[in-house]
Amino acid sequence: MAQKPGIPKGTRDFTPAQMIRRNYIFDTIRKVFKTYGYQAIETPAMESLHTLLGKYGDEGDKLIFKILNSGDFASKIDSSTASRLSEGSAVPFELSRALTSQISEKALRYDLTVPFARYIVQHRHETTFPFKRYQIQPVWRADRPQKGRYREFYQCDVDVIGSKSLLNEAELLHIICEVFGRLKISIRIKLNNRKILAGIAEIIGQADKIVDITVAIDKLDKIGLDGVNKELARKGLPQESIDQLQPIIHLSGTNSEKLKQLKTVLSESETGMQGIAEMSSVLDFSKEMDISEWIDLDLTLARGLNYYTGAIIEVKSSDIAIGSICGGGRYDDLTGIFGLPDVSGVGVSFGADRIYDVLEQTELFPEDSGSRTQILIVNFGEDELKACIPIAITLRDAGFSVELYPDQVKMKKQMSYANANSIPYVILAGQQELSENSVTVKDMTEGNQSSSLITNIVDHLNNLMND
Amino acid sequence: MAQKPGIPKGTRDFTPAQMIRRNYIFDTIRKVFKTYGYQAIETPAMESLHTLLGKYGDEGDKLIFKILNSGDFASKIDSSTASRLSEGSAVPFELSRALTSQISEKALRYDLTVPFARYIVQHRHETTFPFKRYQIQPVWRADRPQKGRYREFYQCDVDVIGSKSLLNEAELLHIICEVFGRLKISIRIKLNNRKILAGIAEIIGQADKIVDITVAIDKLDKIGLDGVNKELARKGLPQESIDQLQPIIHLSGTNSEKLKQLKTVLSESETGMQGIAEMSSVLDFSKEMDISEWIDLDLTLARGLNYYTGAIIEVKSSDIAIGSICGGGRYDDLTGIFGLPDVSGVGVSFGADRIYDVLEQTELFPEDSGSRTQILIVNFGEDELKACIPIAITLRDAGFSVELYPDQVKMKKQMSYANANSIPYVILAGQQELSENSVTVKDMTEGNQSSSLITNIVDHLNNLMND
Repeated sequence: MAQKPGIPKGTRDFTPAQMIRRNYIFDTIRKVFKTYGYQAIETPAMESLHTLLGKYGDEGDKLIFKILNSGDFASKIDSSTASRLSEGSAVPFELSRALTSQISEKALRYDLTVPFARYIVQHRHETTFPFKRYQIQPVWRADRPQKGRYREFYQCDVDVIGSKSLLNEAELLHIICEVFGRLKISIRIKLNNRKILAGIAEIIGQADKIVDITVAIDKLDKIGLDGVNKELARKGLPQESIDQLQPIIHLSGTNSEKLKQLKTVLSESETGMQGIAEMSSVLDFSKEMDISEWIDLDLTLARGLNYYTGAIIEVKSSDIAIGSICGGGRYDDLTGIFGLPDVSGVGVSFGADRIYDVLEQTELFPEDSGSRTQILIVNFGEDELKACIPIAITLRDAGFSVELYPDQVKMKKQMSYANANSIPYVILAGQQELSENSVTVKDMTEGNQSSSLITNIVDHLNNLMND
Repeated sequence: MAQKPGIPKGTRDFTPAQMIRRNYIFDTIRKVFKTYGYQAIETPAMESLHTLLGKYGDEGDKLIFKILNSGDFASKIDSSTASRLSEGSAVPFELSRALTSQISEKALRYDLTVPFARYIVQHRHETTFPFKRYQIQPVWRADRPQKGRYREFYQCDVDVIGSKSLLNEAELLHIICEVFGRLKISIRIKLNNRKILAGIAEIIGQADKIVDITVAIDKLDKIGLDGVNKELARKGLPQESIDQLQPIIHLSGTNSEKLKQLKTVLSESETGMQGIAEMSSVLDFSKEMDISEWIDLDLTLARGLNYYTGAIIEVKSSDIAIGSICGGGRYDDLTGIFGLPDVSGVGVSFGADRIYDVLEQTELFPEDSGSRTQILIVNFGEDELKACIPIAITLRDAGFSVELYPDQVKMKKQMSYANANSIPYVILAGQQELSENSVTVKDMTEGNQSSSLITNIVDHLNNLMND
């Protein structure tokens, strides 16, 4: 019996129409990256399992797709694991974990950041720093699939590594504005700084509760001020600290006004003041870039708090509630885990799949352009077909995308093919036309026809297309 | 202790310099595919294991990378397998096979053809036939890695499906000539037809020995005529059949001369004569395309014999002995296994990695063009940097790829950065220049400097680059 075809849940096929739209996004992003001098790299889909494990927390480790060793892997399972397997274990996951390390040495990459850190350390002697790289590749996560969340999806990462200059942060914000400007997506950029958050926690005497505090404040929109304060109390914050937090939660005004208020609040915290200085510097650069109007200083942004050490960046669509469409930040020690300490980097990652959804929902995808066949030459039979081959060659050499219909079938079927594939021009060259060294060109959009000498066909079609 | 960074054997990182060269190949191939009206699709890296198993023979099944199920997979191992594991098995691979089916449901794609067949069946209601698609994606094979053979490598497949016209075969040959012409690689195309081979085996009364016969004749260059005849005898061919084969082995002359001789030899075989008719038709079309001089009718070409049903195509470099750099053929029932019978297709696959090796060994890669940063703006300090931001914006808006050096370090280091990254122009704008609303432009190739007003910077650089 024939197999019913299907693909693993959370994965997708991309049809030609979807590919055109996806490539519109990738090409736009890639062009902007290049304009700012970022260079492409690629890393393998498979990394050594030990390269990835332990980098994304316990939950992340579970979501990494592991690859079964090739060959007679079962013969490598040690006897104690084998006998425990046959007895069964009362502790969930225990045997799976023990077994994994014996039958799997490789895994699919989970993001582009850890492979990039590994790349930097491995290639450091052939790399010039600062290194400005971009990387557009799929990643895989064994997450539960749901609307907008896939097990295979593309990340578009852009990072500068080996430079502590805050110009890099500003340049990434500039790139964000340029990419979404070209895609015509309205955005707001949230900007925070880990050092400001650390300063706040320090000032209220709760340095160890920085995550709890930020997570609670992050819920202000959803649960209101009372809700936030209750949650802070539940997390063990004394009333005094909660009181001290109030002006910070209430922080309002322009970015400069917010910075001014923060300077007063954080004057006693060295870390906090350093965060403010960094934030000011980035905002200063962004003024020169004429992009500061898109940026909101937002203390509730806590993305990747255990990971970023300076700036934290997140971008949302102003039109569609879909979560973050781009995000990133500064990490001071990306490569330490692979033996190269003190390499600072800053980067952001564009989420191509969510950007796709925004463009689709806002109907901002451009009309197809240039990516489809422009001219179909009708097949009237073998002799006519042969006479049409040189016409196709001439048109292709002139840069047109041209198809000869391969089969000798009814005109109606060939015309439906042109319509189904949105081919705008059809060339008809039957015996009559060919005997006059001419062809008929049908404009499929307008429905009208025109005649052209074969020797004049390139000019004729150029004129039609530029009309 | 820090981990020593590395990647799985048989996989590769691609540095920026390699990416430029790889993209030169992919972009060339993609442009040609589009010019002929082929449309891009993509399929997921992971397919269901049952989609892939049994499609590549027993050896292929072993070379498929399987993905370990997520979650507590060990708890799903049945008790009989578990107890056999703890006892051990004397039969190699037996337990691995039994275990695989219980702990793995997904695998990495092994080629692009089977996923394409699955795609066609799954999307047949939204697909217009004939469907001309291309697909450029990596595939994974657990082969023993060696020089030029990788465990992750790219295939560039181009196929027409749902059309039996032999124009398609000719068009693919045309595409092959166009791609390698643009890449400036000299090639020979070997063309054979499964039906001619079947006719030969039929005529000498050895229809069931078609593979043995072809494999033996394939060795003519290496082991000579005597060697071939000995091998045929060893494979059980009676002397009479071997005698009948001699004129075919000796087949020589132009393609038309070979066809003429074959017509005599195969006149009694219906299948053989059909193969000759197909071959003639393809060669006729290729004459109209002006590409027949690159094509050799070659009866020893037996690539994928169990798979192709009509034309068999293989391309080799004329300059470098590196094996096939492109190959394919006609397959009459690609999708039957997935429940859609009688869909005929024809396609070829370009081997990007071998093409890379040919271009590298023949030094045919073009000089880097357009893919790197064109202008570096030197960082003289925060004030100058801010003054330079609008200059960078103006130049980027004009289409140049521009970097601002982020850190305030010695001039010498910034110049080394420009050299290491092959950046051809450096802009110097210190206080002196800025006070005169001008910049100094250094040509890094020639070593000379020129001055430009900031308002004239785009024209100035355009002039320099077009000199």
